[in-house]
Amino acid sequence: MDGAGTPSARLAAQFAFLNEADRLKSVLRATTLVDGSRVENSGEHSWHLALYALVLADQAAANVDINRVIRMLLIHDLVEIDVGDVPIHSAGGLAHGSVDTMAAEAQAADRIFGLLPSDLRHDLRALWEEFEAAETPDAIFAKSLDRVQPVMANLMSGGGTWTTYNVTADQLETRVGTKIARGAPGLWDWVKARAAPFFS
Amino acid sequence: MDGAGTPSARLAAQFAFLNEADRLKSVLRATTLVDGSRVENSGEHSWHLALYALVLADQAAANVDINRVIRMLLIHDLVEIDVGDVPIHSAGGLAHGSVDTMAAEAQAADRIFGLLPSDLRHDLRALWEEFEAAETPDAIFAKSLDRVQPVMANLMSGGGTWTTYNVTADQLETRVGTKIARGAPGLWDWVKARAAPFFS
Repeated sequence: MDGAGTPSARLAAQFAFLNEADRLKSVLRATTLVDGSRVENSGEHSWHLALYALVLADQAAANVDINRVIRMLLIHDLVEIDVGDVPIHSAGGLAHGSVDTMAAEAQAADRIFGLLPSDLRHDLRALWEEFEAAETPDAIFAKSLDRVQPVMANLMSGGGTWTTYNVTADQLETRVGTKIARGAPGLWDWVKARAAPFFS
Repeated sequence: MDGAGTPSARLAAQFAFLNEADRLKSVLRATTLVDGSRVENSGEHSWHLALYALVLADQAAANVDINRVIRMLLIHDLVEIDVGDVPIHSAGGLAHGSVDTMAAEAQAADRIFGLLPSDLRHDLRALWEEFEAAETPDAIFAKSLDRVQPVMANLMSGGGTWTTYNVTADQLETRVGTKIARGAPGLWDWVKARAAPFFS
């Protein structure tokens, strides 16, 4: 049986979503790999971030649930399949965090999470909205990791998007540092000291 | 302070590992993306698998801990940074699951997990060994997902590695089907019916 509500129809919906998610591997970011060889895609970025959560869990506040942070990071960029990556330091195209960007991302979430069976659709959509709102301890820590990973890539590759977009120390502090420090103050202190030579 | 055992030395070791892990994005697999546009790398593959675990959790046995499965899948391919991907259906180079491959992977695990602070080194190394041994319910389910994701990529891209390596229905059953069915029998039934036309 393949009718709606059957186990087979449920699997068809789960795989429709998983096959659509595959497209995140073709969404390109501004940041390069650590070795500078090419720009990173949003699928591998999401994996790297989940690994960050696993390895840097001791940088989170005591009330953070790392398993929820990992789940959040696995799905946090799926809307980019429709909207594309919106670089933090770029001035062109959609502006990071603007009303237009948020509306486009909400529409993308409707479509992409809408492929799932209703229970999963509601759970994963809620998890994505929690990440976007950045109000819960889990979301705040997830956002810190999402900000610190490109900083490491820039540090390792000799400047990266800081050079591309002529980023100043003040801009780094405002756009990136405050967000990292909010969820992981010790992490920002450590990374900031290593980023300083690039802005002197 | 940057001496051994200080918070700063701990972060340096955590980032040495995370920066080394970045190289998994440059390890190429035999399988293509769903759209067939290029081969997949092992970093984005690891992300996709973790998403599989999140979305297909209801296919696991009741005693499976999905959070542990996700953690396992995030680290399961890191040894490929040194050893490369060993395709299941390929006859060239290192053979999948051979003694030589397992020895090379164990050496890679020593080096790569060895970058971490000792607590994380022991935890993640043990998790990787559990995955490799495929004896616990969590590892058995993780292995099922690792086998089913390339099957979906082949289904979606018109044959993929089944065509490349002239795979027969019997080989698919032995190398892939039995492994998927062991941890997720319902999943293999559903996928097998959809793969059948490629082997008739």
